[in-house]
Amino acid sequence: MTTNGADSLCDTLLAEGVDVCFANPGTSEMHFVAALDRKPQMRCVLGLFEGVVTGAADGYARMSDKPAATLLHTGPGLANGLANLHNARRARSPIVNIVGDHASYHLKHDAPLTSDIEGLARPMSSWIRRASVGTVSHDAAAAVSAAKADRGVATLILPADVAWSEAPSQIAPSFPTVADRTGRFDEAIPKEVIRLLKSGRKVALLAGGRALRASPMENISKIKEATGARLLLEQANSRIERGAGRVAAGRILYNIDAAVQDLQDIEVLILIDAKSPVAFFAYPGKPGTPLPTGCLVLNLSDSCDDPLAAISAIADLLGLRDQASRSIAPFLRPERMHGELNPLAIASSLGTLLPENAIICDEALTSGQHIYPMTSTAAPHDYLQITGGAIGIGMPLAAGAAIAAPDRKVLCLQADGSGMYTVQALWTHAREQLDIVTIIFANRSYAILHGELKNVGAGAPGRNARAMLDLDNPALDWVKLAGGMGVEARRVSTADDFHDMLAFALSRRGPYLIEASI
Amino acid sequence: MTTNGADSLCDTLLAEGVDVCFANPGTSEMHFVAALDRKPQMRCVLGLFEGVVTGAADGYARMSDKPAATLLHTGPGLANGLANLHNARRARSPIVNIVGDHASYHLKHDAPLTSDIEGLARPMSSWIRRASVGTVSHDAAAAVSAAKADRGVATLILPADVAWSEAPSQIAPSFPTVADRTGRFDEAIPKEVIRLLKSGRKVALLAGGRALRASPMENISKIKEATGARLLLEQANSRIERGAGRVAAGRILYNIDAAVQDLQDIEVLILIDAKSPVAFFAYPGKPGTPLPTGCLVLNLSDSCDDPLAAISAIADLLGLRDQASRSIAPFLRPERMHGELNPLAIASSLGTLLPENAIICDEALTSGQHIYPMTSTAAPHDYLQITGGAIGIGMPLAAGAAIAAPDRKVLCLQADGSGMYTVQALWTHAREQLDIVTIIFANRSYAILHGELKNVGAGAPGRNARAMLDLDNPALDWVKLAGGMGVEARRVSTADDFHDMLAFALSRRGPYLIEASI
Repeated sequence: MTTNGADSLCDTLLAEGVDVCFANPGTSEMHFVAALDRKPQMRCVLGLFEGVVTGAADGYARMSDKPAATLLHTGPGLANGLANLHNARRARSPIVNIVGDHASYHLKHDAPLTSDIEGLARPMSSWIRRASVGTVSHDAAAAVSAAKADRGVATLILPADVAWSEAPSQIAPSFPTVADRTGRFDEAIPKEVIRLLKSGRKVALLAGGRALRASPMENISKIKEATGARLLLEQANSRIERGAGRVAAGRILYNIDAAVQDLQDIEVLILIDAKSPVAFFAYPGKPGTPLPTGCLVLNLSDSCDDPLAAISAIADLLGLRDQASRSIAPFLRPERMHGELNPLAIASSLGTLLPENAIICDEALTSGQHIYPMTSTAAPHDYLQITGGAIGIGMPLAAGAAIAAPDRKVLCLQADGSGMYTVQALWTHAREQLDIVTIIFANRSYAILHGELKNVGAGAPGRNARAMLDLDNPALDWVKLAGGMGVEARRVSTADDFHDMLAFALSRRGPYLIEASI
Repeated sequence: MTTNGADSLCDTLLAEGVDVCFANPGTSEMHFVAALDRKPQMRCVLGLFEGVVTGAADGYARMSDKPAATLLHTGPGLANGLANLHNARRARSPIVNIVGDHASYHLKHDAPLTSDIEGLARPMSSWIRRASVGTVSHDAAAAVSAAKADRGVATLILPADVAWSEAPSQIAPSFPTVADRTGRFDEAIPKEVIRLLKSGRKVALLAGGRALRASPMENISKIKEATGARLLLEQANSRIERGAGRVAAGRILYNIDAAVQDLQDIEVLILIDAKSPVAFFAYPGKPGTPLPTGCLVLNLSDSCDDPLAAISAIADLLGLRDQASRSIAPFLRPERMHGELNPLAIASSLGTLLPENAIICDEALTSGQHIYPMTSTAAPHDYLQITGGAIGIGMPLAAGAAIAAPDRKVLCLQADGSGMYTVQALWTHAREQLDIVTIIFANRSYAILHGELKNVGAGAPGRNARAMLDLDNPALDWVKLAGGMGVEARRVSTADDFHDMLAFALSRRGPYLIEASI
């Protein structure tokens, strides 16, 4: 029995549990589109720009712990999706990134859309393969396996002739994946970690990645309490399960001077599915990392296949199995604020009104400094951040999260300048009737850059600096922008109106946007 | 005397005649922003997404024949601009593409925004260099020179520490550029071409690039008339000077079957600043190029530094210097249409109302098939196309063209699906009060893909195909989208209303958008 390569690819993806495809196809992908059309089990979600497609695939992966497929059109389509693949790579989100290309034999003609797809994909991919006629099912199974095993972007290039050529209808068997390494660590490691924790030195546990789910965080928190270590989270995280009833913990600070001061006493840093902290940017005369000189860094992932299993073993060895953590956040509502709307008032209303089990996608940047502290005792929720600094992820991320978790309310906290990067995502919110409330922090400038310009000692910004850093002329009208893409929206400029509008937006289902003039 | 690297870079760009900078900066570029702020001679134009920045730089280069600078923020910022750099590369537009990066010594920390910038830039760049402390002026002069000489994208990576470090205030001398090769060709070439033209074989002259300006086109046209050769233009062109009073010529057809039939008799093809024609995409069982087997292809650029000078010599050798071409388009207005609005009615109104010396930026795609023929006898104008197939160039291209030619009316003919890719460009139209009338061909689908899906024999599109190819649910409201970015707009749905609205929009100055429901 035979089929064609495109059908074989779809069947393999479905057999591997990949049943959502975020797409923006082109001519070279038409056989793949036709094949997807024959598979109603696959949910196809269109993004009107590829940055929406890849950002949504990231959000989906963070909330479902499994990859979605993307469908991108040749090198330029891939290029448009790279910034959010960069964020996905930093979030360690598994994605099966499918990029259509010309038929193999057409490349020699250097047709207008021809470009070096492998070259473009390499910086953001952990795995790249060009599918071949006859092996497309194996290629697809390998891509899914690589995405899961590496927790990364597996880019599978699909030449048009591979899609339309005959292929065996039999599906390739699954590859072994990271699941097979669950629970593995060397017995010596937990003892070594306990020795360090009890050495009398100042130890900090730095948690990131999958350590930030509620259950491993409780183990880590108990170890902290039992040994006097500090507990810190990475500065930018893929997904934190937090809020009332869960472990409360602070993050590494963004400002390098503040972070240096905060960490100055640390002698030993134990990384739990985390990377050693670094300065987001370099500044003249300032250090590249906030760690004090001579700090010993132990990365559990270097010596354990499953660092979370090692953490669980450490808790057991310390006799903590049946204890509860004492660092669990209570349920407390921030005080209600009145008067002019500002970022603190927005954060306060969020802390009060956040529905149980909500998902926060936070790309509020400078306007978002109060959100994390003001939601620490809110109803339990998931908190997703921009991980790679490539702005324009908030609204796409929210789309993917909403598709992965359709019964949960998603709150997208979006800075205005960054929001414009992938503003097309609002259309997908409307198209798929996703249960997302988007809050635009409309400060009408690249506020972070105004701060940085001040830091370089340039004095008051002149005409050219303002031309590049201000978004006020003309002001963006987010109510119109959202309406133009089918998302209902309102603008508010007082704390009371914002509170009431947020309560209203959360009371209904479906996409809604609040432009918060701050 | 010393200054810093950023000032040295700006001073060098200005000395080289680069005085427009399309920008979307970030933290690592703050010293460059501060330096630009000290140079009021440099015009800084903000795009709210990097695809706007690079597309505008392309439009500027096409209309001014000199490079603008871009200012992009690290790898992800570059990635966002790559699709339109791909188009620029295909248009052979000179661009000095400046990408800020972390300080050199910070890269080892693999901070969140770190990525392989050279790797990302390579597929779309003809030249890449990482600027160094102490040589930044030489690096910038070399970038300008490379952009001009290659007519390509010269990517200059600017590490933050190079920008903020001390640099000599003396400006590096200019490099020799392509200008030095003007007029050069081997004397034997014109004679060889004449021999071919008079050989009795069926010869076609295929003109592209800078051959499509009015003056060289007149030479080519006279050679055609004197020798019985055919004259064809490339399918997608950077800039054609055409309309009443200029040479009228048809383009290679997009549809491969039609192109094959059209070119079946050609025995010799002479390329004049053009590439040999190829199929835009491959299809099962169809050829990769429209040329008949055995067609001899002679590329003048392979043997002449200046193929246009060789063409001029050929005209002289044929005794045509003082003759006029007989293929000059008259000034004729198409008949006015009434009833429901459709692409033909739009093209007809354009042909009638086009102001003298207008600039058309055409990304109307499937809806634009009538524009080229219906404007062939319109007032003389420049016609700019999407050259690399990377959609989302129309509105950015128009922005750059309007900045290069502020006294000329720009018409941006924009398909709706493609328009959404870089919709942020409308904000730049408003911000800079550019004299651009944008016409949205609102067919609410990826019409080109519906056609292609039909071609693969998939039958009527089902749920998944419609989910990926239709833009109708929800319908985009371009009046709101434009209004959200400060551009006045109206929707029309009859031929008469469109005609009147276009006349109105052309009668005023500044940006305007017409959503043409078709």
